[in-house]
Amino acid sequence: MERSMWFLDQKDMPTKWYNIQADLPEPLPPVLHPGTGKPITPNDLAPLFPMGLIMQEVSQERWIEIPDEVLEVYRTWRPTVLYRARRLEKALDTPAKIFYKYEGTNQAGSHKPNTAVAQAYYNKVEGIKRITTETGAGQWGSALAFAGALFDIEIKVYMVRISYDQKPYRRIAMEVWGANCVPSPSTDTKAGRDMLAKWPDCPGSLGLAISEAVEDAVSRDDTHYSLGSVLNHVLLHQTIIGEETRKQMEMADAYPDIIVGCIGGGSNFAGQFLPWIRDKISGKSPNMRIICVEPESCPTVTKGLYAYDFGDMSGLTPLLKMYTLGHTFVPPPIHAGGLRYHGMAPIICHLHKLGLIEAQAVPQTAVFEAGIKFARTEGIISAPEPCHDLKVAIDEALKCKEEGKSKTILIAHSGHGHFDLASYNAYLQGKLIDYAYPEEEVRKAQIELPKVA
Amino acid sequence: MERSMWFLDQKDMPTKWYNIQADLPEPLPPVLHPGTGKPITPNDLAPLFPMGLIMQEVSQERWIEIPDEVLEVYRTWRPTVLYRARRLEKALDTPAKIFYKYEGTNQAGSHKPNTAVAQAYYNKVEGIKRITTETGAGQWGSALAFAGALFDIEIKVYMVRISYDQKPYRRIAMEVWGANCVPSPSTDTKAGRDMLAKWPDCPGSLGLAISEAVEDAVSRDDTHYSLGSVLNHVLLHQTIIGEETRKQMEMADAYPDIIVGCIGGGSNFAGQFLPWIRDKISGKSPNMRIICVEPESCPTVTKGLYAYDFGDMSGLTPLLKMYTLGHTFVPPPIHAGGLRYHGMAPIICHLHKLGLIEAQAVPQTAVFEAGIKFARTEGIISAPEPCHDLKVAIDEALKCKEEGKSKTILIAHSGHGHFDLASYNAYLQGKLIDYAYPEEEVRKAQIELPKVA
Repeated sequence: MERSMWFLDQKDMPTKWYNIQADLPEPLPPVLHPGTGKPITPNDLAPLFPMGLIMQEVSQERWIEIPDEVLEVYRTWRPTVLYRARRLEKALDTPAKIFYKYEGTNQAGSHKPNTAVAQAYYNKVEGIKRITTETGAGQWGSALAFAGALFDIEIKVYMVRISYDQKPYRRIAMEVWGANCVPSPSTDTKAGRDMLAKWPDCPGSLGLAISEAVEDAVSRDDTHYSLGSVLNHVLLHQTIIGEETRKQMEMADAYPDIIVGCIGGGSNFAGQFLPWIRDKISGKSPNMRIICVEPESCPTVTKGLYAYDFGDMSGLTPLLKMYTLGHTFVPPPIHAGGLRYHGMAPIICHLHKLGLIEAQAVPQTAVFEAGIKFARTEGIISAPEPCHDLKVAIDEALKCKEEGKSKTILIAHSGHGHFDLASYNAYLQGKLIDYAYPEEEVRKAQIELPKVA
Repeated sequence: MERSMWFLDQKDMPTKWYNIQADLPEPLPPVLHPGTGKPITPNDLAPLFPMGLIMQEVSQERWIEIPDEVLEVYRTWRPTVLYRARRLEKALDTPAKIFYKYEGTNQAGSHKPNTAVAQAYYNKVEGIKRITTETGAGQWGSALAFAGALFDIEIKVYMVRISYDQKPYRRIAMEVWGANCVPSPSTDTKAGRDMLAKWPDCPGSLGLAISEAVEDAVSRDDTHYSLGSVLNHVLLHQTIIGEETRKQMEMADAYPDIIVGCIGGGSNFAGQFLPWIRDKISGKSPNMRIICVEPESCPTVTKGLYAYDFGDMSGLTPLLKMYTLGHTFVPPPIHAGGLRYHGMAPIICHLHKLGLIEAQAVPQTAVFEAGIKFARTEGIISAPEPCHDLKVAIDEALKCKEEGKSKTILIAHSGHGHFDLASYNAYLQGKLIDYAYPEEEVRKAQIELPKVA
């Protein structure tokens, strides 16, 4: 019998997150205070985050215990399945072995709950009653709404207005879980009201939504703010994905030659590859290729500058050393909303700078073509974000065919596309276009990079 | 560690479907030819179905081997997980143990692929190049589109126009898998054109969509027709659900006192309970309760007549002995589209008549209230159909609390509600209403029951 799925028993589920900071050949550059330009202290972050998460952000411990209360919730959907894409292999007539770890079967449909649940928990133990956040396409807002329901925390989501209007199902899902979701700009904050006064029909932006969520959080003692990607503690929580996959690949008697995943803020792919990259750092597996895939129209790692920049568009956050297209850069309206971000997780940028991982940019239509091929072989309708992985995995599998090599390819598949069917419709109707790299806009945005001594 | 999920290894996946016909205390009443009133022969069905399925329809063998080609596809999502609803139990403060077998994690999101894949396979081996079907809400059309993609069979779906317009995501999903989906009435058949000539804005009905799909199938030699519920072979294919669950409940050291599921055509719930009811028939477990749940507004088993009737609204199909509200009955527009059917699987009706299973009708708003409770405890957003199960399971769990009894309740959960969020929105906004039992309409429809000698 040829197996296509590997389950991991709940008793074998990892009980620790893996912290790459313990194994980095060089430490991460410090996060800087935007006012003083000096490294920030845990106390600087305390108005926004619980101390449990702040300490994880800077921890140098290799293994961090997952609290029992988080494990209990993880066990409502984890371990997730490792799949072998046998039907895709057959259709490509490739000698490559293609595996994918799929995070789409949980309640919210993506990898995001891995950190949403942990963040809700650490806020809960510090007595926080309410969390604010922003959401673009809605994946992150959904996950935090779900986590809030489980820990009885009130969730307020500022959703970019254009998405709020275009994706009502995402908003309704958040409401089903009991969250309060408002379009941003809203009348609930000064930032929102100021914008509405100037521009009543403003479609909103992620930067503005962050401003609203942060303003709301700091204005109330019972409220914190939560971020769904980029930061070290978020990537840490996602390592449960790769730790499970290591056990499952062993069950499948396989080891990856190539690991591929898309990067927006970087948390899903880091969650998969960080537990493997330690084999590369230790010299156990020096030739392993780790390929980060990004959109050609928002090519942060492949074309960005490695510099200190703000995490948000309005310049409210601490300064992060990362590849950046400039915090005022507005990416073209591609359908992979989760990949439209000017910056990138500092851990990913650091590893790229150290030459441990590579990056590749792909155009939108080729991404959907790969998504359709996957749907018609493996059956799964993928979100536009992981279709980026599929494009590059298929390319690599075809190279294996040309070269007659049987490599093992592991895909970090972040979730389903059930709420993204309008974009598939556009593709099938030939209405999807490839945006060129907006070089001029990036140059303009990069002029506004903050000065750091 | 308290476990919440039980995986079944692929090597332990059942390789046979269970055929209840071998164990019935009395045989099923025959299916009658609508013209002659005599029992139909396999040849009568040959223009519509492949002989492989027709022989399963009448087989008396207890176990039917699942072909390797079907198992290979099942293994892209099966075995599905058995869950324990620990968070729901805690929220209800009940001593009951609540388990649910969840069919929502596969590519199409419901139990329907279990039979769609098998039906596509048997058509494929008989050289069929094309299959037609109808779909209401789109669950079944999606599953057959998915199966068609995997077996390289062209799928033509006639989708009730009002659903086609209201649920564009379902239509797009079918197109992603490569199916051709048209609104019914369409210009592709005489039945459709006749209707459009009379009534250009006709919103369509399931009965008319069946007429179009059947007319299309019989007009071409390379084409067959496919049905997603009701018939014996469809229920047979779904028994993989219950056979897996038996093994998983043993792993969990549990045995159900109560099994609960919703019934529209009956295939999902039968797929779960048929493998258990043999313990009741054999006397091993005489007190096991099997509760079929239906909508109060379309209460086929609780209020219907047990009589011969057509399976479709237009009177084209053979006559089935079943509970029926009358084939011309049009149910109120409740949101559980999969439960709006005038008849019921003959096997379910027969078992009810024999006193082996019970039925219960529930109102729509209570169903959504249960769905919200489940979403805010277990996290899953359920389709409106399985929310019917949840309502009754919660009622039974609360009875256990009152009586201080720790019963084991097993829910047959058929799938997710990602495409049904508009109905949750209506509920949350207080716009959902409970339709009374339309007694007068049922009486009128039942007058038109066919005369059988």
